[in-house]
Amino acid sequence: MLEDLVQKNGSRILLIILDGVGGLPVKNGLTELELAQTPNLDRLAKESALGMHIPVDHGITPGSGPGHLGIFGYDPLEFQIGRGILEALGLGIEVKDTDIAIRGNYATVEYQNGKVIVKDRRAGRIPTEENRRITQRIKEHIKSIDGVEVLVEPGMEHRIALVLRFPEPLAENSHLINDTDPQKEGREVLKPVGENEQSQKVASVVEKLLEQVSQVLKDEPKANYILLRGFSQKPKMKSFQERFGLKACAIAVYPMYKGLASLVGMEVLSFEGQSIDDQIKVLREVWDRYDFFFFHVKKTDSYGEDGNWEGKVKAIEKFDEKLPELLSLNPDVLVITGDHSTPSVLKSHSWHPVPVLLKSPYVLGRTSNRFTERECLKGELGIFPAKALMNLILAHSLRLSKFGA
Amino acid sequence: MLEDLVQKNGSRILLIILDGVGGLPVKNGLTELELAQTPNLDRLAKESALGMHIPVDHGITPGSGPGHLGIFGYDPLEFQIGRGILEALGLGIEVKDTDIAIRGNYATVEYQNGKVIVKDRRAGRIPTEENRRITQRIKEHIKSIDGVEVLVEPGMEHRIALVLRFPEPLAENSHLINDTDPQKEGREVLKPVGENEQSQKVASVVEKLLEQVSQVLKDEPKANYILLRGFSQKPKMKSFQERFGLKACAIAVYPMYKGLASLVGMEVLSFEGQSIDDQIKVLREVWDRYDFFFFHVKKTDSYGEDGNWEGKVKAIEKFDEKLPELLSLNPDVLVITGDHSTPSVLKSHSWHPVPVLLKSPYVLGRTSNRFTERECLKGELGIFPAKALMNLILAHSLRLSKFGA
Repeated sequence: MLEDLVQKNGSRILLIILDGVGGLPVKNGLTELELAQTPNLDRLAKESALGMHIPVDHGITPGSGPGHLGIFGYDPLEFQIGRGILEALGLGIEVKDTDIAIRGNYATVEYQNGKVIVKDRRAGRIPTEENRRITQRIKEHIKSIDGVEVLVEPGMEHRIALVLRFPEPLAENSHLINDTDPQKEGREVLKPVGENEQSQKVASVVEKLLEQVSQVLKDEPKANYILLRGFSQKPKMKSFQERFGLKACAIAVYPMYKGLASLVGMEVLSFEGQSIDDQIKVLREVWDRYDFFFFHVKKTDSYGEDGNWEGKVKAIEKFDEKLPELLSLNPDVLVITGDHSTPSVLKSHSWHPVPVLLKSPYVLGRTSNRFTERECLKGELGIFPAKALMNLILAHSLRLSKFGA
Repeated sequence: MLEDLVQKNGSRILLIILDGVGGLPVKNGLTELELAQTPNLDRLAKESALGMHIPVDHGITPGSGPGHLGIFGYDPLEFQIGRGILEALGLGIEVKDTDIAIRGNYATVEYQNGKVIVKDRRAGRIPTEENRRITQRIKEHIKSIDGVEVLVEPGMEHRIALVLRFPEPLAENSHLINDTDPQKEGREVLKPVGENEQSQKVASVVEKLLEQVSQVLKDEPKANYILLRGFSQKPKMKSFQERFGLKACAIAVYPMYKGLASLVGMEVLSFEGQSIDDQIKVLREVWDRYDFFFFHVKKTDSYGEDGNWEGKVKAIEKFDEKLPELLSLNPDVLVITGDHSTPSVLKSHSWHPVPVLLKSPYVLGRTSNRFTERECLKGELGIFPAKALMNLILAHSLRLSKFGA
């Protein structure tokens, strides 16, 4: 229904995700947002629409994938992103609808009577440096198999991500292939078998890949094989542009968030540097070239995950300092929120609703004094599902026509 | 989806249902909860997560069945509990998946040319004592029919509940049988007919039962027959343990609530006495033996139904006095709520959202000063569907893993 109402205009929308921004009391009953000195956010909060979003459902703690998809307007229960895809995105491989993405482990195997027996599922947890060297060997020797491009990137220790890029978009369910990891040492590596005709074609490419890998790595003392898990395929989804009529770009530092943005069809911008200043610089440069800007700030989440509430408070204050620069671009709609909460006391993502601030000329405002969990609870947006945020953004940018006569 | 995320840990969850606790203004614009002196609840409310739940849907007044099912995490629109089952549960007959439960009325009939004609649909509303005597006669004479156990219990005046317990779990839709009550005096009693093959088998047992009943009661001056309505069968539902991984027990006084707990597979505890002190004593005794404790307090509802707001206020105050004893058990998650509202001014259940208090280390707190309707509206849980309460309970007891990566 929403898509039928979308109309275009010249408005510009800036969506700022402070990753994991929501929190819980850490000191004197106050949360990280409440402890932070945020004069600029405070001023903005007084005149903005505030609320809280529920990322997936009541009580459900989202990973980064479902957290972002919801905010991008895609129901995270409908569009589930497989493990292999997230691993690939996290290591900087873009995933397209021609692709099968897979998580890999370097492993130690022995060949006994033509059988491949797992001796160590993690190849003795080789150091990341070793992983990089070995992965480079694979890259040099295996570029494609039967016309299917092979992409591989090293992760931490024994972990890698692989993508098989086919010449044509894949049929649905092409990823239904069993893990080859037998889960226990001393067992035989499992043969990849497809559940249907289209995944069987993929599985036969995987078999050839594994043969070639074992050839390339045969002289490696530890990492002489790869075990595969989490075969995944990008779900069929209309692009952000198709659904919302927005020309969107992503300004993010970490590969995972760039990857999630590219999944929905945003243009991922490359730039020098990793600081928020670097991100703002790019934003200024491209301000005339897009309608929608996804601006991702990672630090708030990282400190939360470490249980470092003081670090999280500082990251929020640091963002607050930069806010005037972002406001000076004068977006028609500015949204500041998180993809999920990461309370320092839990040292992890959590299920708690996430503060939302929406600045637009078409809001009530004056419901609340700050951008904090408790003040956002008093706001005019109430508590709403994350997937409704894009509706609100489009409405406030006057990009939705009337429903019914 | 939820069930895939459930993980077990040693946490203990105490769910206290103050039956019908929500209300409306009764004096000086204040509700029963607002008029009650509740120092212990007040203290708890300040540090807890508060909100309101909607039992079934906006504007929908629930019976006790849907009210409790929602709170137990079962969508009350999906799992509908037939009248026969509620009648049986209310009179203390447990209902299993082998059972057909039926509401019965004692009636006066006349036999004319082989036809059974209803003279009085309620057998002159015989006194409850008479009902008990007559029901005892049936119990003595009819224990089973064709291997189907017959359970019967007296209700008030002319009302009874019957359960036919088959040797094996029944196929779905085995209960699709018409009422035998013709609804008007002077008409012939309707023959029970099944809508399908499986319910026709049940109907033929019912026919034999009615023949035997008419034999046993043939010398009764008034109650010489039974009219049957509301043939019901327990809906197919996964147990509480299967869905949430919780070993749950119910500490309730009234048969209806014990019955509803047993429907979802909770263990119903037997104990001496009927007071809240007796309930607390059992709770203490079994505290090490379960993960989840459903603790049902009836008094708040009874006074509301009578329109006795002063009684309801006193019942709330009485509960408040006992609260420290319950808190001393130190549950990891404590929830206090109702299954529905019962405003004294309406003398009945109502559709109004119900106050919810959730105590856990992982809440914001400090949003509200008391456990009342108006203060709960300010709380961090917002207004949410009752069926989401179990999500929140599981999340706050850290029993849900992350959704997606």
